[in-house]
Amino acid sequence: MAHPATPISPPLKDELDIVIPTIRNLDFLEMWRPFFQPYHLIIVQDGDPTKTIRVPDGFDYELYNRNDINRILGPKASCISFKDSACRCFGFLVSKKKYIFTIDDDCFVAKDPSGKDINALAQHINNLLTPSTPFFFNTLYDPYREGADFVRGYPFSFRQGASTAISHGLWLNIPDYDAPTQLVKPLERNTRYVDAVMTIPKGTLFPMCGMNLGFDRELIGPAMYFGLMGDGQPIGRYDDMWAGWCTKVICDHLSLGVKTGLPYIWHSKASNPFVNLKKEYKGIYWQEEIIPFFQSVSFPGECTTVQECYIELSNQVKEKLGHIDPYFEKLGDAMVTWIEAWDELNPPSKATA
Amino acid sequence: MAHPATPISPPLKDELDIVIPTIRNLDFLEMWRPFFQPYHLIIVQDGDPTKTIRVPDGFDYELYNRNDINRILGPKASCISFKDSACRCFGFLVSKKKYIFTIDDDCFVAKDPSGKDINALAQHINNLLTPSTPFFFNTLYDPYREGADFVRGYPFSFRQGASTAISHGLWLNIPDYDAPTQLVKPLERNTRYVDAVMTIPKGTLFPMCGMNLGFDRELIGPAMYFGLMGDGQPIGRYDDMWAGWCTKVICDHLSLGVKTGLPYIWHSKASNPFVNLKKEYKGIYWQEEIIPFFQSVSFPGECTTVQECYIELSNQVKEKLGHIDPYFEKLGDAMVTWIEAWDELNPPSKATA
Repeated sequence: MAHPATPISPPLKDELDIVIPTIRNLDFLEMWRPFFQPYHLIIVQDGDPTKTIRVPDGFDYELYNRNDINRILGPKASCISFKDSACRCFGFLVSKKKYIFTIDDDCFVAKDPSGKDINALAQHINNLLTPSTPFFFNTLYDPYREGADFVRGYPFSFRQGASTAISHGLWLNIPDYDAPTQLVKPLERNTRYVDAVMTIPKGTLFPMCGMNLGFDRELIGPAMYFGLMGDGQPIGRYDDMWAGWCTKVICDHLSLGVKTGLPYIWHSKASNPFVNLKKEYKGIYWQEEIIPFFQSVSFPGECTTVQECYIELSNQVKEKLGHIDPYFEKLGDAMVTWIEAWDELNPPSKATA
Repeated sequence: MAHPATPISPPLKDELDIVIPTIRNLDFLEMWRPFFQPYHLIIVQDGDPTKTIRVPDGFDYELYNRNDINRILGPKASCISFKDSACRCFGFLVSKKKYIFTIDDDCFVAKDPSGKDINALAQHINNLLTPSTPFFFNTLYDPYREGADFVRGYPFSFRQGASTAISHGLWLNIPDYDAPTQLVKPLERNTRYVDAVMTIPKGTLFPMCGMNLGFDRELIGPAMYFGLMGDGQPIGRYDDMWAGWCTKVICDHLSLGVKTGLPYIWHSKASNPFVNLKKEYKGIYWQEEIIPFFQSVSFPGECTTVQECYIELSNQVKEKLGHIDPYFEKLGDAMVTWIEAWDELNPPSKATA
């Protein structure tokens, strides 16, 4: 199987980190070598910190385990989840780059319909470097793509679009289903390659999956917090969803764009639906109140930075979701701690506006 | 080239009319014969009523020319455009069926990536008979399609979806561009087959093209008015756009769904960009005020039927767009005349709720 040669100067080589949360040896990187090797990796080791994670030779990486997280953040480490892939957001915190691509270690290189390996990272970069169209729907999808444009009736004043903050990629093979759907459809596989990238319109929420995700850390990084999940928390598997809801309402307020669609990765293995059900069941129930909350969130005009929006959001979470469960009080506090940690590790001179 | 045999009982055979506006012989129907022949056609002849339109043998049709429109509607015929494909909405008015499929006479059968002829009508019917998902975005597109479902994080209470009122199909070959884009990119062709149907989220406007369009006449028919265009009017080529904006805000208010994507038709010929520019230029300018108007339209709770919403909308058009040009006063009046004509031809016993 011939991989394309690694380009001499891969796009954004010095401006992008790849963040990988893991509990195991990173053999999956072998398949990604032609695409990832030029980039710097931030590996966030979850679980037992005494375990050694093997990283294939030739990759440039830094690795943080729980001891590192505790040492670097001190008491603020409480906002970083343990025994849950939500810990990945620690990598977002310590990165000093403008762009992040994060991927799960059970995701492999997918093939496009012509049989060619898909360079997921290159597609995310392209998605992030071209504008989004959150204010009006373009029926031929991404108007900035070669061979496409805005269709008749698309207002000209909207055609400059908005800066893209998030690029959400999809999955062939094992779809990202919740536990009940996994249980009902254990054999369903996603085989449909939809050749499109589109903007999630302003005012519309979506389920953001953290498995295959790119974002502009300068534009939205401080809101890309994956919440309190896993060890000691009442829920799991809502880490990326939480980050998706929070970032989307803030992107909408700040007129930033969120794209979904290409690139696909090959998701190799369904997680255990019984374990997932245990992690999810409270989230499935709580979500019925959380979504209407996010659908009605609004920010005062004074909130002009991501940090300001996020602190405001943490207050609203405590005030309006606190009655569901004491967990939301704790989560609201953790959101504040996260911003404090963000500002500490990304001091104002370098901080995002 | 083998066409699939016409099924014995095509879906919705007695519940769907195909509406075709035209000024020429309908030879294009030969290619559609395997798919359209079982259905009833309503042909709206535009322009010179003394001209004879030839319809290929074997089709079941009724044909209306301008004299027929004037005879049937009397003074209310003023709301039906002349010398513009906007006249197609007369066909929606006289139909007695639940569903409409309307198509332009320069649209031919497209092929899917496997080389198979696409039965556009069957796909529209499928789109209309399955729910939409306007309240939350599903990243794997249409969750009701075989092999797909709602992804993790999609609230369960939203999974019943909404009734689908409109199915907007797309075009391979000649894309539906405005005159400026046609002039700038005369050679651009749409060759990308995107294998997806998606719901336009609630609160989001889109440019609805009338070239390849299905809808549920009982759910949204009274709002599917294509406005005043062409002969004696200051603009053209905004007929379908107008209908799209009006129907979308009403669908949003009434919790009805609007889908776009599949099916594709093969659009054979670009219209003359210089002629189009003359028709469009005022619309391109006015649209910059019209879109913010539609983005902020809201209906009082008392408006519970399409007719009530449409009359309310006509008042808001006159009140809030009248300052742009006296045309909008006239258009607002025509919207009322259209509803009067609709109710006359579709009396309450049969009228939509």
